[in-house]
Amino acid sequence: MIVYMPNNPIPNLEFTISHEDAQSDARRASFKLPHGTLQTPMFMPVGTYGTVKALTPKDLKDAKAQIILGNTFHLWLRPGLDVIKQFGGLHQFMGWDQPILTDSGGFQVFSLGALRKISEEGVTFASPVNGDKLFMSPEVSMEIQAGLNSDIAMQFDECTPFETGGIPTPEKTVRESLEMSLRWGARSLSRFRELETGNALFGIVQGGMYEHLRDASLAQIAEQGFDGTAIGGLSVGEPKPDFERVLAHIGPKLPKNKPRYLMGVGTPEDLVYGVSKGIDMFDCVMPTRNARNGWLFTRFGDLKIRNASYKTDNRPLDPTCGCYACKNFSRAYLHHLQKVGEILGAQLNSIHNIHYYLNLMSEIRESLEKNNFSDFVKQFHHNRAVGTMEITP
Amino acid sequence: MIVYMPNNPIPNLEFTISHEDAQSDARRASFKLPHGTLQTPMFMPVGTYGTVKALTPKDLKDAKAQIILGNTFHLWLRPGLDVIKQFGGLHQFMGWDQPILTDSGGFQVFSLGALRKISEEGVTFASPVNGDKLFMSPEVSMEIQAGLNSDIAMQFDECTPFETGGIPTPEKTVRESLEMSLRWGARSLSRFRELETGNALFGIVQGGMYEHLRDASLAQIAEQGFDGTAIGGLSVGEPKPDFERVLAHIGPKLPKNKPRYLMGVGTPEDLVYGVSKGIDMFDCVMPTRNARNGWLFTRFGDLKIRNASYKTDNRPLDPTCGCYACKNFSRAYLHHLQKVGEILGAQLNSIHNIHYYLNLMSEIRESLEKNNFSDFVKQFHHNRAVGTMEITP
Repeated sequence: MIVYMPNNPIPNLEFTISHEDAQSDARRASFKLPHGTLQTPMFMPVGTYGTVKALTPKDLKDAKAQIILGNTFHLWLRPGLDVIKQFGGLHQFMGWDQPILTDSGGFQVFSLGALRKISEEGVTFASPVNGDKLFMSPEVSMEIQAGLNSDIAMQFDECTPFETGGIPTPEKTVRESLEMSLRWGARSLSRFRELETGNALFGIVQGGMYEHLRDASLAQIAEQGFDGTAIGGLSVGEPKPDFERVLAHIGPKLPKNKPRYLMGVGTPEDLVYGVSKGIDMFDCVMPTRNARNGWLFTRFGDLKIRNASYKTDNRPLDPTCGCYACKNFSRAYLHHLQKVGEILGAQLNSIHNIHYYLNLMSEIRESLEKNNFSDFVKQFHHNRAVGTMEITP
Repeated sequence: MIVYMPNNPIPNLEFTISHEDAQSDARRASFKLPHGTLQTPMFMPVGTYGTVKALTPKDLKDAKAQIILGNTFHLWLRPGLDVIKQFGGLHQFMGWDQPILTDSGGFQVFSLGALRKISEEGVTFASPVNGDKLFMSPEVSMEIQAGLNSDIAMQFDECTPFETGGIPTPEKTVRESLEMSLRWGARSLSRFRELETGNALFGIVQGGMYEHLRDASLAQIAEQGFDGTAIGGLSVGEPKPDFERVLAHIGPKLPKNKPRYLMGVGTPEDLVYGVSKGIDMFDCVMPTRNARNGWLFTRFGDLKIRNASYKTDNRPLDPTCGCYACKNFSRAYLHHLQKVGEILGAQLNSIHNIHYYLNLMSEIRESLEKNNFSDFVKQFHHNRAVGTMEITP
């Protein structure tokens, strides 16, 4: 067992690797945070507005969620930092007593397109809620995240798009963007340490689809003394071979003694691939967003519950799943709820998809503990190819 | 204690009155049904499409729901009787193992307005889902309700509207309508007994705002041998004094030895008034529909959670309420969820309102057992007038 103490001057963060896979870069670790210790590799459900959509905190605990993600930008606008600060932070406001990670808000600010103006100092933009002129910078982002009191804050950066003006973003643009992100990272870290929250701050490696730019970004991020390292700018529309090429190149190079976080990823297959490349943490809206649209993930492949073939199907979504939806309801009932647009459909589908994602990560951790991760991966792909209509109850 | 055996040839229904209020017509009773015994007076959450909107069966059990209502018309169209029959009934299809009451479908058919054509035989109409030409009659309604296997079925009738053509519905129209309903009631009963479901069938007293027509309707309904008696055609847009006048007139006259059900009612105040007039059972979409719109019922009055005064209010909705929403979240959080349109807002608000309604009925039952119902009513009105902003945590 290898225990690493991070650079954070407040000694409540601790990253411990207990198992390393012999045939890949996968590792089984734990990460101690103010509101609890994470067991990795693991997945973080996304709770944009201080709620993982259609799930109660109790549903999340039933699914064994360890940590959830909050969106700084959205929470800053609504309900506003003043409100959340009155409650002593996001945990108390939303009734979630386990760890929280917040993004920097940068991704959403840049998504505003024509509504925002970028300078070295930061980004000026019009609030999409009420048109107010607002300013976001590394310092502002750190102050908001400190106010939210998230266990893990993220540096303010620019997430380089895969395409710019209809063509893959040129190397020069990517380089300039990552260099600004590096300067913003240093400012983020400096301000964050001043705030003395006792929480963790992660740096973000950018560099688009260019391996040498990823290396250049990583070299500086690794030096700056963050408490963990994230990969940004993947799963942003690039073809799957590019995603895997860049991840295979940079994942295993991230500092070994700190948690590694692949932002905004992805499908079950992406998660398994990411783990094999040394990633410890993932987040994605996919399980909850797809759930609301009736796209359900199972051990035996994906299932679009609106499909007429499920109209009288009395089997559970996945007979091997222990979630409330699978234990109590049939595909036919979930099909019906989706067809008539009932809220309960969104609830049960979300309960299932989140359970599936979290259980997948739990099985990955178990396989790493038992030193049979590569067997697990083979079985995982085999099962996923079976098809949900073929399984017997 | 008075035990009544109903007329149903299958001896699994039993209505027992344990307490009668000395100062009103209120009574405390129990009603044995195939899927469980109801403690009355009580309220039935409405589950239109085989789900009480935004609530899981587990949420309903946590709130101590005894029985829920399903809408025959809606379920007949979607998912269709063929689907539900394959599961052996609505209980199994929706994962609810306690009693279910279904309406006859008549109310929804008549609401189709120009899309339907009424004759003595029944109603021909175009499906609002796919335009199919459909036919509903007393016999068809009984066959559907038998297929749903609801513990309590309702006779097919016409719910006389309060207004016709912009004026209060004339006496002649009301009389003709209730007479057809009586003939349909006899046909309903005849077909229902043939089906030998072992479930209960309730007759419905109509007669609009005319006391003598209510009496005429009741006289025949009481003779026909239903297992329970309902009042229809109240809370259909009439002024509150008319509602109370008709209910005060007819409620206490309903057969004493059978359960009494006031359909589609109402506010907490309406429920308390109804109990005092001898009503045992109520249903209404109000707690769940209002919940989704942010209208919350509490012991200390109603609360519109979108109101800006709740933006930073860290108190629970109702400090005396034991529901999951009140035990874990603040008004400020619920205000936020409502403002940003999160599904969790609908869930938590629905959990609270249903809990409030069911707990109110539980307190009414307790007061009847302790012979202090009239004191309870005084305290109820006093509390409701306090106002939610005045209460201290």
